[in-house]
Amino acid sequence: MYFGGDYNPEQWPEDVWHDDVALMRRARVNLVTLGVFSWSSLQPAPGRWEFGWLDRVFDLLHDNGVQVDLATPTASPPPWFGRKYPDTLTVTADGTRLGHGSRDTYCVSAPAYRNASRELASALAERYGGHPALAMWHVHNEYGTWCHCDHVARAFRTWLRARHGDLATLNERWTTAFWSQGYSDWDEIQPPRATQWLPNPSHLLDFRRFLSDEMLAHFTEQRDLLRPTGKPITTNFAFGSWVPVDHWKWAREVDLVAVDDYPTGDLAEESAFTADLARSWAGGRPWILMEQAAAVEYTPRRTLPRPPGDLARTTLIHVERGSIGAMFFQWRASRGGAEQWYHGMVPHAGPDTRTFHEIVALGETLAALPPRPTPGPAAKVAIVWDDEAWWALQNRGLPSQDLDYLEAVKQPHRLLYRAGHHVAFVHPEHDFSPFDLVVVPSLLPVTDAALANLAAHRGTLLMGYFSAVTDEHLRVRLGGRLPAFGITIKEQRPLAAPLTLSDGTEASLWSEEIALDGAVAVVAYPDGTPAITRFGKAWYLSTRLADKAYECLLTCLLRPSYSSTGTHGER
Amino acid sequence: MYFGGDYNPEQWPEDVWHDDVALMRRARVNLVTLGVFSWSSLQPAPGRWEFGWLDRVFDLLHDNGVQVDLATPTASPPPWFGRKYPDTLTVTADGTRLGHGSRDTYCVSAPAYRNASRELASALAERYGGHPALAMWHVHNEYGTWCHCDHVARAFRTWLRARHGDLATLNERWTTAFWSQGYSDWDEIQPPRATQWLPNPSHLLDFRRFLSDEMLAHFTEQRDLLRPTGKPITTNFAFGSWVPVDHWKWAREVDLVAVDDYPTGDLAEESAFTADLARSWAGGRPWILMEQAAAVEYTPRRTLPRPPGDLARTTLIHVERGSIGAMFFQWRASRGGAEQWYHGMVPHAGPDTRTFHEIVALGETLAALPPRPTPGPAAKVAIVWDDEAWWALQNRGLPSQDLDYLEAVKQPHRLLYRAGHHVAFVHPEHDFSPFDLVVVPSLLPVTDAALANLAAHRGTLLMGYFSAVTDEHLRVRLGGRLPAFGITIKEQRPLAAPLTLSDGTEASLWSEEIALDGAVAVVAYPDGTPAITRFGKAWYLSTRLADKAYECLLTCLLRPSYSSTGTHGER
Amino acid sequence: MYFGGDYNPEQWPEDVWHDDVALMRRARVNLVTLGVFSWSSLQPAPGRWEFGWLDRVFDLLHDNGVQVDLATPTASPPPWFGRKYPDTLTVTADGTRLGHGSRDTYCVSAPAYRNASRELASALAERYGGHPALAMWHVHNEYGTWCHCDHVARAFRTWLRARHGDLATLNERWTTAFWSQGYSDWDEIQPPRATQWLPNPSHLLDFRRFLSDEMLAHFTEQRDLLRPTGKPITTNFAFGSWVPVDHWKWAREVDLVAVDDYPTGDLAEESAFTADLARSWAGGRPWILMEQAAAVEYTPRRTLPRPPGDLARTTLIHVERGSIGAMFFQWRASRGGAEQWYHGMVPHAGPDTRTFHEIVALGETLAALPPRPTPGPAAKVAIVWDDEAWWALQNRGLPSQDLDYLEAVKQPHRLLYRAGHHVAFVHPEHDFSPFDLVVVPSLLPVTDAALANLAAHRGTLLMGYFSAVTDEHLRVRLGGRLPAFGITIKEQRPLAAPLTLSDGTEASLWSEEIALDGAVAVVAYPDGTPAITRFGKAWYLSTRLADKAYECLLTCLLRPSYSSTGTHGER
Repeated sequence: MYFGGDYNPEQWPEDVWHDDVALMRRARVNLVTLGVFSWSSLQPAPGRWEFGWLDRVFDLLHDNGVQVDLATPTASPPPWFGRKYPDTLTVTADGTRLGHGSRDTYCVSAPAYRNASRELASALAERYGGHPALAMWHVHNEYGTWCHCDHVARAFRTWLRARHGDLATLNERWTTAFWSQGYSDWDEIQPPRATQWLPNPSHLLDFRRFLSDEMLAHFTEQRDLLRPTGKPITTNFAFGSWVPVDHWKWAREVDLVAVDDYPTGDLAEESAFTADLARSWAGGRPWILMEQAAAVEYTPRRTLPRPPGDLARTTLIHVERGSIGAMFFQWRASRGGAEQWYHGMVPHAGPDTRTFHEIVALGETLAALPPRPTPGPAAKVAIVWDDEAWWALQNRGLPSQDLDYLEAVKQPHRLLYRAGHHVAFVHPEHDFSPFDLVVVPSLLPVTDAALANLAAHRGTLLMGYFSAVTDEHLRVRLGGRLPAFGITIKEQRPLAAPLTLSDGTEASLWSEEIALDGAVAVVAYPDGTPAITRFGKAWYLSTRLADKAYECLLTCLLRPSYSSTGTHGER
Repeated sequence: MYFGGDYNPEQWPEDVWHDDVALMRRARVNLVTLGVFSWSSLQPAPGRWEFGWLDRVFDLLHDNGVQVDLATPTASPPPWFGRKYPDTLTVTADGTRLGHGSRDTYCVSAPAYRNASRELASALAERYGGHPALAMWHVHNEYGTWCHCDHVARAFRTWLRARHGDLATLNERWTTAFWSQGYSDWDEIQPPRATQWLPNPSHLLDFRRFLSDEMLAHFTEQRDLLRPTGKPITTNFAFGSWVPVDHWKWAREVDLVAVDDYPTGDLAEESAFTADLARSWAGGRPWILMEQAAAVEYTPRRTLPRPPGDLARTTLIHVERGSIGAMFFQWRASRGGAEQWYHGMVPHAGPDTRTFHEIVALGETLAALPPRPTPGPAAKVAIVWDDEAWWALQNRGLPSQDLDYLEAVKQPHRLLYRAGHHVAFVHPEHDFSPFDLVVVPSLLPVTDAALANLAAHRGTLLMGYFSAVTDEHLRVRLGGRLPAFGITIKEQRPLAAPLTLSDGTEASLWSEEIALDGAVAVVAYPDGTPAITRFGKAWYLSTRLADKAYECLLTCLLRPSYSSTGTHGER
Repeated sequence: MYFGGDYNPEQWPEDVWHDDVALMRRARVNLVTLGVFSWSSLQPAPGRWEFGWLDRVFDLLHDNGVQVDLATPTASPPPWFGRKYPDTLTVTADGTRLGHGSRDTYCVSAPAYRNASRELASALAERYGGHPALAMWHVHNEYGTWCHCDHVARAFRTWLRARHGDLATLNERWTTAFWSQGYSDWDEIQPPRATQWLPNPSHLLDFRRFLSDEMLAHFTEQRDLLRPTGKPITTNFAFGSWVPVDHWKWAREVDLVAVDDYPTGDLAEESAFTADLARSWAGGRPWILMEQAAAVEYTPRRTLPRPPGDLARTTLIHVERGSIGAMFFQWRASRGGAEQWYHGMVPHAGPDTRTFHEIVALGETLAALPPRPTPGPAAKVAIVWDDEAWWALQNRGLPSQDLDYLEAVKQPHRLLYRAGHHVAFVHPEHDFSPFDLVVVPSLLPVTDAALANLAAHRGTLLMGYFSAVTDEHLRVRLGGRLPAFGITIKEQRPLAAPLTLSDGTEASLWSEEIALDGAVAVVAYPDGTPAITRFGKAWYLSTRLADKAYECLLTCLLRPSYSSTGTHGER
């Protein structure tokens, strides 16, 4: 079991390093992530390399039994780099070329940046690939920078050609006939830059897909250069609405799925959510909790101290779900810089603090675990997760601005978690057969293959509102028929205020007009039309339920009597 | 009576067109607007024209008894156009040149765009001017794009020279001595681009006026090229705070006033408001409801289904006020694109839907009307409408940010509407003699001519707070005297919280210190100073009343006993 | 005692000037500020000077016993200037070069602007330096424009070299090792322009310091050119979160501290706050209230009339604290322009108004005062004020977004003001010995010298939460020890909701984990840990108290019995 965190010794005088390793030993730290923000320390000026300090850190750690997760520092180019290659600096949608002064100011499509990334990966592989302390590689950090420059425009066009083949197909798939957007030449296509009014939603969705693939190419380029060292290679997934990473696709390319976990709200529920996603993305392979905050919760307006014991509790939620380590950002809280108020395993006040005491205790707890904990029982319930569906619900111009993909997915997860169920996540085209129940929340775009996959599921299926409404290009599937559910959706009707359903529970946010094509109405709207329908084992939920009612529905669908005896009728 | 909507067949395969006309026949549709977004379909690449598809649509419609309102597609230039002529792309106030990807991304002052607009109008006039299906022309769509580029700067200066004659006059009218803004050369004047702090309000108001005239020139250029075809020519007015269209001026230039009606709130009241404006702008000539939404209301956060029957109700409000048609945006809901969730007469779910059934029923209703419905009785009440006053109350730096011209006008309109009165709108310089009562809400800038017009009115006059305070250049009329009302306004005093007036009713938003110069105080503020005054038939209301009190006041002023017997004293 | 206001005769026809002086005599006005916005009137075009109108104004004022505070008009360059020297126009953080159309659109680092400023100061000194009406000089107006252009970048680098000496020191002080921000060449450093994510807080704080010094250089350049005229020289301080002026430093460079006072909220309390700051900045030298609003309060959403008598009340608060004058913005409310709704001593409605009557009465009141009012007793209480601490708490990424330096300082001030105490403000490194009690609110960065100064204070000291946490470069002082207070701060813990302390009072916003190193806990958090501690005369308050509890604490600390008998133990 790995235990440790991001370690940034370049921020500290060398004598602090010796305190560090002593404290690491005390806390039983056995792995640290080095180098995430070290580009300017490793290459302080064009053509000048300084490895000496890192050599000493490696040796010092090794001497103290701490292994290294070595990062390629490409997420944070130094100031000289942007000055020498201004075309590598990020350009916003409105054309502003960002300057240095923060982090992540790069363009993943800029040739000079790609060259430098390869050079850095090669240099690190060569120098540290054989160091006995090296445990794994950590490429880059939290991929997620959007750029809209001309390099991006060119790469986007290449990607679009590969995806759509010819312009006529692209025009058809993007419905460019609307608003006179038909393209006559590939070079007319730009990234979704600032425009007069609503953008084309298909354009935006494809741009997210492109960014995911483009960043993945940047990752795999480095990975392939590090591969000869024989060590596992990962990158830590950030998780946020702005992150253009298709996690299912990326998970196939890393040796080890690594996630950062910064919950807000109920920490246990949210950590379980992140951990279940990570375990599912890993698909049976190892995964690791690469970052979490020591002792504190970052909420939108303030940091809040975690209650005593909370650190261990959320960590063990990850471990129970298979994480091979418990890593923190960062070892020592920074003295200065933009994140100086982010907490560390060693706080500003030093080791004689509640936080460090909890860290030491956690180190002991983890050390006492069996070397490879028995995995929990396989999940019998799955929730469909699809980054593309998340992106699609972030478009403007939807029937309701309150549609929230993440909350639609989190709600059933937290209800199942509270009820003690193990939950897996699945891609819409994955095999559903291991699961008694598959929940499909607000999955706006679906491919034909996914639609067939849903229809073929022999277990119970619960699909939520505004799902399967379009194809993967965001073209509406006309007619509204959902044969697998025995219904037709006639109309989407967002709700301005909650309603009371026929069973006395509350519905909010959304409703739909449903015509029954074989299904039966289980719960009705106040006007008597169906709100929840059932067609054999295929259930459809056309509104947002309050937690209690949703939990009741899920519990009912998971009762063995329900699925084995089929007392409610079979499809 | 025209019945139909925007029809965008270029979004659909040709076989759908045949379904379309069959459904149109079923719904008794007799007019469709073609071509609004067809530029990229008609001219898919520089120099390449494709009229074949539109020829076929024209013939198909004609064969099925559907007439055509043919749009010039200039509101939505295709991507190739902006790429070929980058100087035609809109520039924002902060200098960002917008890119393609939406609609309305053009600069009405760019020569290349003006040339292309003329070319398109000529081409359409030549090809379809004689087609038997052609009923009318629809120039452009919802004029309203602001641009701040150098083309605009040049045109603005030309317009300013024509308006003000010489720089000394402009400097005086804009009060440029304040903040050292004196211009010494016409070329120093720019559009109101991003600046350090509050902009000059006269500069902003003149820029709105210029934009209105500049867009009108773009309209009349096309109109004059279409004129030889002999068909009526219109453009559909959008209505919003950002729209720089002086409706009274534009109404004189169109053959047919056409309005789009997208109410939010009480649909009947708001449709009556729009219809009364349109009827008044038309000034006895025909007008048409060119766009409304089928089956749905667009509110800021979500679309809401209209209650059953509502579609017919709001449509008949327009028809009763003289609309010669009932048109919708759009015939068939789009499969994709930015407005795919905007509803259509034929929804995504097809014709077997509540919406289409209501459309069919509405078609029957309209067909059953007499060919030219008897106009209602002439309005005896008028409310002053002035786009310039609306614009002036959108400036920054006003005594209260809560001043709301539109609400100040809508409030008396809806109260009179609820009370069953017919209401007209008038321009401040129009003849008021047909009206028993003229209401003047928050008319900040007034010309000397308008002031004389108010004073000359022999009927009852009710003027609201913050009116006639400046001239048309937004220079304060010093001294605060309002002789026609027998009062002097000593001070404007916005209210932070509501007050109770001497008659027990509530006043909010605003108050004024009034000195009586002959008028009598009818209602007083808590400190005993006048809140509502009367001077013969001239009433002044220095605050915002709640609906009930305002209605009571209006009702009182409209009582025949009041105006004929003059029991309350005569001026 | 000076009485008057900004006088902008260039906005009015010359015949109004004669009314003006008659009204000034009536109101006993004896000083007006001329020329603040006169650049375009004095130099209406490149190379063209027009002094005639100002000559006449000077003479007219002189003939009527009104003296002149003559402004250099550099705060508002005319349109021709920005057109001729585009590189003098302000550039925003995202690179937008602002255009003319407002005021304050200049770059204080642009050579052409600096040249023009010197030329203007020299021309005015030469022409009016000997005029008998001239009483003082008013350089510029409300310094405060941020620019991010390349001129600024160069000047910033020069300033940084002078401050930090070498790049290694700068890198260390700014903690650039974090996020790989290490600079290898001075030319890599830019102003804090738009960047990808959180900026470096030390970078921002130094940029504010630089702007303060750069503007001060612009001031002193003009001052030194005006010096030979022998008249006192000042500039009016604006006061706002965006203003990069280090008031302690600037106060040393002006002959007369001048402040603008635009209170929002309780006018008396806020005016007392501004006046106490001004008196303290002046440090025993004269100071003046240079601007306040006549008759009105500017709140964020609206202007509100001041209650009768309020004008005199707030004015006398300044006079009691030593202001040698009572000046207003502005003499006559403007007819047009961006601030036409800002009030004047003579309102739009003219002299027969409540406002002007109050002005006349105030003139009488001031004239009846003794020529040099006896100063009040010396303050025995001081509050530490430090603009740098204010700036530091405006950075992003702090533990709580609700930290509010200004409110943290205002709260004890208003409580002491209400309780009738005279209050001084002191710089953290000033001599504290005159004071029985020194209050230190939320002073995040402190120098070593300031820390020593605090520790050396023999009187009572009350330091608030989140103080002395970093050095002046915003590097955390590790370990959290505060020996002067006998405590160690183990952890900052922002509060999401209020807490009840052991004495029944309410704590909000913030809390800290405190370990006692000699101090005693006076009040505790619900978990029993210290909230308020005492170590001899050094008190520490680790949270935000409600007004009542804070007032109680302050009153207690000011009781003579407390400080003389030391019943609670001595340090």
